[in-house]
Amino acid sequence: MSDIPPTSNKTDKRNGIEVDVRALRDLYRALDAHSESAAMAAIAELHPADAADVIEQLSSAQIRALARLIPVVFSGEILSELPDDVCETVVEELNARQIADAIGKLESDDALHLVEELDEGLRAEVLDEVTPKDRAAFENSLLFEEDSVGRLMQRELVALPLFYSAAQTIDSIRNAAADDIPESFYELYVVDPGFHPVGRVGLVALLRAQRNANLEEVMIPLQVTVSQNMDKEDAAYLFEKYDLPSAPVVDEAGRLVGMITVDDMVKVMHDEHTEDLLALAGVSEAGLGDTVWDVVQSRSPWLLVNLVTAIMASFVISLFDQTMERVIALAILMPIVASMGGNGATQGLTVVVRALAVRKITSANARRVIRREMLAGFVHGLIFAIIVGLITWVWFGSLTLAWVIFFAMIVNHFVAGLAGVLVPLGLKRLGADPAVASTVFVTTVTDVVGFFIFLGLAALVLV
Amino acid sequence: MSDIPPTSNKTDKRNGIEVDVRALRDLYRALDAHSESAAMAAIAELHPADAADVIEQLSSAQIRALARLIPVVFSGEILSELPDDVCETVVEELNARQIADAIGKLESDDALHLVEELDEGLRAEVLDEVTPKDRAAFENSLLFEEDSVGRLMQRELVALPLFYSAAQTIDSIRNAAADDIPESFYELYVVDPGFHPVGRVGLVALLRAQRNANLEEVMIPLQVTVSQNMDKEDAAYLFEKYDLPSAPVVDEAGRLVGMITVDDMVKVMHDEHTEDLLALAGVSEAGLGDTVWDVVQSRSPWLLVNLVTAIMASFVISLFDQTMERVIALAILMPIVASMGGNGATQGLTVVVRALAVRKITSANARRVIRREMLAGFVHGLIFAIIVGLITWVWFGSLTLAWVIFFAMIVNHFVAGLAGVLVPLGLKRLGADPAVASTVFVTTVTDVVGFFIFLGLAALVLV
Repeated sequence: MSDIPPTSNKTDKRNGIEVDVRALRDLYRALDAHSESAAMAAIAELHPADAADVIEQLSSAQIRALARLIPVVFSGEILSELPDDVCETVVEELNARQIADAIGKLESDDALHLVEELDEGLRAEVLDEVTPKDRAAFENSLLFEEDSVGRLMQRELVALPLFYSAAQTIDSIRNAAADDIPESFYELYVVDPGFHPVGRVGLVALLRAQRNANLEEVMIPLQVTVSQNMDKEDAAYLFEKYDLPSAPVVDEAGRLVGMITVDDMVKVMHDEHTEDLLALAGVSEAGLGDTVWDVVQSRSPWLLVNLVTAIMASFVISLFDQTMERVIALAILMPIVASMGGNGATQGLTVVVRALAVRKITSANARRVIRREMLAGFVHGLIFAIIVGLITWVWFGSLTLAWVIFFAMIVNHFVAGLAGVLVPLGLKRLGADPAVASTVFVTTVTDVVGFFIFLGLAALVLV
Repeated sequence: MSDIPPTSNKTDKRNGIEVDVRALRDLYRALDAHSESAAMAAIAELHPADAADVIEQLSSAQIRALARLIPVVFSGEILSELPDDVCETVVEELNARQIADAIGKLESDDALHLVEELDEGLRAEVLDEVTPKDRAAFENSLLFEEDSVGRLMQRELVALPLFYSAAQTIDSIRNAAADDIPESFYELYVVDPGFHPVGRVGLVALLRAQRNANLEEVMIPLQVTVSQNMDKEDAAYLFEKYDLPSAPVVDEAGRLVGMITVDDMVKVMHDEHTEDLLALAGVSEAGLGDTVWDVVQSRSPWLLVNLVTAIMASFVISLFDQTMERVIALAILMPIVASMGGNGATQGLTVVVRALAVRKITSANARRVIRREMLAGFVHGLIFAIIVGLITWVWFGSLTLAWVIFFAMIVNHFVAGLAGVLVPLGLKRLGADPAVASTVFVTTVTDVVGFFIFLGLAALVLV
């Protein structure tokens, strides 16, 4: 029935790094046999992250079957470990009560992420099922912009006044009710009477402080505070730059309202990486469980754009049909000019997109980067114009043709260098994501310019 | 003299996220005036990570000038925050004594990273200048493979026996000499008498434990242990998957030898992503301070490979020169077939490379992914073959030509789908990095097949 992976007796030595194929095989069998107990047994022993990895390997139909068979498996951690598209599939098979139960077992940030994924109707039903306190917290969080820190932050944190002693602080952590402090945290924040965070105290520093020292003496003044409206990718950048384990989140008045932690930021970085990489290739979204239809939907829009630009290039070529008819070598050689220019431009483009993503291109150095890319394009043009010129001379025995391709390649590589840097910088300045659409713009430029210069020069010189 | 960025009076509101342009301008002026005190003043107040960002914006010549002017600025943190290429430039201007001083101020993992970057001769000189204890530690670390966890781990950590009570543990952390424990850490490891790690205790759990409870009762059994020989990218994957703040590192005998922390892993993820992105575009390395010559060196090898494949494609076209001479529309239309195939293949390729990088494609689902990509290629082929066929019919008024391009596009998109998934999977199976070289292989296939099918069909049918 389902495609059972080939049996293998060797236990996977790369524990945790590769999917547990044995558990996956057991799960396939349990689903085929509709055995609730066997399905439970297959994943019960696994870490939630490993169980999620195994479940992610199933087809959507199998995931639905699993959710119907043992909904309890999705109550809590496993659900929050699943990628969004899989999570969506599971949630469609659960009722509001079951989803609310799952949410009740998570920390506030993971729980919110689940609630975010629900569509309006179901979300309202689920919110009816959770505690009034949780409900208020969710509704509050959902007021923030979708990709803001406010959506990601957790409200559980430890904040204490400046005059607390180290001993008092330790006692208050020791004696707090389990619900009032996070299960694990790396630093606490010191706040002034207006609840503005002014410093942070790592737990090691707290333990090693004199017992009667005030937090004011023990704390490190805050260098990084994150606003609740900040874009989460900006926050992730700060974590990476300053090696932060966590950061305090403040509202517009600078009051402490939450905390974000490095593990959430690692997820943000991961998603940002995936987005950039896919955007450069013209793919809007990709999940492992995607059907053929999902794939076509997520990729055909950019293929359509590419078709329009390819037709533009063909139109440019058609302007020179008579020239080509007389010198068919032009038709044979023209893809070289376009392809080399396209590749050169893509190289520069990728370097610039990455530098923008890691905030390394600023008003102070943009001009230097543009100059460098232009020059590099020119040098590449010169090198490859010489090689291609010589090849053309030998292949077709025409020195004039060799000179034509020589000049066309220099011009096109120079234009490629320029387009590769100006297009992403321009998109960025317009407030657009430089990774999206850059590739197709830039290769259109190099195709159109490449064909036009090469065939145009030929028309002037050869005919 | 140097290019001073445009003056702006507004203070940068996106503190920390964008480079401090004011400090950069001050630094430019100080360098122009050869003023040691002004250069110091420009960056003295900045966080080392911000100072590094500012310095990274300088040209290599300016960086050298700065290192000669105030070598002391590079002693310690700033040096370890600089990207490798900038760090290399600075180190060339410092003597062994100055480098050794800088190294002495860093934690063992950052210090080792600096030592790694030195060339053999200088490294030996620097190792002569550090303390014998540090020297032994460096030499020990350098025995590990270049990208292994052994190179990254820190040796400072807290490991205690099972029978220690929470109170004893707190006291031992409190009373340890500053050199014996890390300045900051998130969890300690519980070891058996053979020094094998068996559990971890977060500092919050330690603080909240009964004072007389044994660590054995307080600890969480270890789920993830990292081997010193593990590839650092695999370790980073484990951190991301299990949301780890730190992990114990063990030797072949399973004995605890070190610890790696999430901030190091964030750097590894960052570098891995940059590498993948650049590799897909055929760029071997890129730094902001790269000169035109660096750029040409890092990009021309793949441009050369692309030239070879472009000439192959031209050779395929030349086989059909007589056909094209008779039907020049073929020369006009052929780039569409190749370009659409190339784009479709690049989309699939990128999705597969990303899925491999995040370990989502396994023996259990590879067949499903291959099938899906083949089918998606076919569907794309069908959709765009219809569009292009109709356009061709209208444009050139030849139904036969329309049928030729219709079939050529279906075949080429199908081949594109297949190549986009099989090339990266094949490279992975051969032990190569699927991001490197995939693009050029795949687009060669789609170019050659595209031209051959389109012109070959035309030769059979039209002439």
